[in-house]
Amino acid sequence: MRSSPVPDIVVGRLPLYLRALAQMQAEGKEITSSQELGERLGISSAQIRKDLSQFGEFGKQGTGYNIGYLSDQLKGILKVDRVWDVVLVGVGDLGRALANYGGFLDRGFRIRSIFDNDPKKIGKQAGGFTIQNAADLDKQIQAAGIQVAMLAVPSDEAQGAADRLVEAGIRAILNYAPTSLSVPTSVRVEYIDPVLHLQHMTYHLP
Amino acid sequence: MRSSPVPDIVVGRLPLYLRALAQMQAEGKEITSSQELGERLGISSAQIRKDLSQFGEFGKQGTGYNIGYLSDQLKGILKVDRVWDVVLVGVGDLGRALANYGGFLDRGFRIRSIFDNDPKKIGKQAGGFTIQNAADLDKQIQAAGIQVAMLAVPSDEAQGAADRLVEAGIRAILNYAPTSLSVPTSVRVEYIDPVLHLQHMTYHLP
Repeated sequence: MRSSPVPDIVVGRLPLYLRALAQMQAEGKEITSSQELGERLGISSAQIRKDLSQFGEFGKQGTGYNIGYLSDQLKGILKVDRVWDVVLVGVGDLGRALANYGGFLDRGFRIRSIFDNDPKKIGKQAGGFTIQNAADLDKQIQAAGIQVAMLAVPSDEAQGAADRLVEAGIRAILNYAPTSLSVPTSVRVEYIDPVLHLQHMTYHLP
Repeated sequence: MRSSPVPDIVVGRLPLYLRALAQMQAEGKEITSSQELGERLGISSAQIRKDLSQFGEFGKQGTGYNIGYLSDQLKGILKVDRVWDVVLVGVGDLGRALANYGGFLDRGFRIRSIFDNDPKKIGKQAGGFTIQNAADLDKQIQAAGIQVAMLAVPSDEAQGAADRLVEAGIRAILNYAPTSLSVPTSVRVEYIDPVLHLQHMTYHLP
């Protein structure tokens, strides 16, 4: 791994490569190529080779990539060769879907606790978790040293919730509220807003 | 608007700008600047000016952008100065959350029908819709000329569902299943997979 920073757009493609490799493993494949990966992902094979070369030598010309090895390397680079505890804040429909989602653990994440500020929800169950009082967020995050949060609260509560998360020690927020968050530069935020994707696609429709 | 293609990454930022402008309008603001937009979005003002200049002249040096005007222009460019009918396929937890989500209509989209293939769900309600039999997908899409779909089915059903959607005339698919879809080049696919974002963020964590 070289020490100069890799463009963030390249880093953002590594999880896609890792996901495709996992799918190939599930199909029983052992070897792949940048061509095959590219076809699955709609990315050129040249782009894939260039992206991977930023992090090291993972395959030999002509013999392709060993899927298990490349997968392990990518997990190490993305730091998902471990399991990260995650807090989920906001248990509406979407929060409930996230709490029920079974696809986190084998990709490096485990929801540790879920929180809401609605007295009618606190103490109830969702996805095998007991919904906890959002007032207790801070001390739980601090006690467990959790760094990653998913935010699924209404837009007008998102910034306030983010401020508290950051204050408690959270360093990465996946924000489902359709609003931009203002956080210190030491904190990463990623956004999931379906309308951004829909609007991106309608641009291309006739 | 110029005729040579604008890089897709630039197009992908326009919905972000539009969302920030809508937020400013909701706050009662009338004028903004590339600096102010940039601060809200964590994007440099130079990048914003460069992006917008690909589509025309929307502001004057020194006087900033009229928010209403720029917003209308971006809606036109993204083709969300109209309302697109959307079908939702798959009414699990996530599909239910999407059916209940109130934030589509004022941003250019309206869920028209929701479908599932589970006999226990067909005929039940979700988010004000009656869940319809997925077997009727094709004829409803064709009859209404719908071009946009949201896919929230399990991974192992996603490709099959996508094939049917494309066959019926869908040209844009927002895929929530954590798997890459193979579609003709005339069809756009965007992906929402929270783990891709989480893994992108853990790369940057210590």
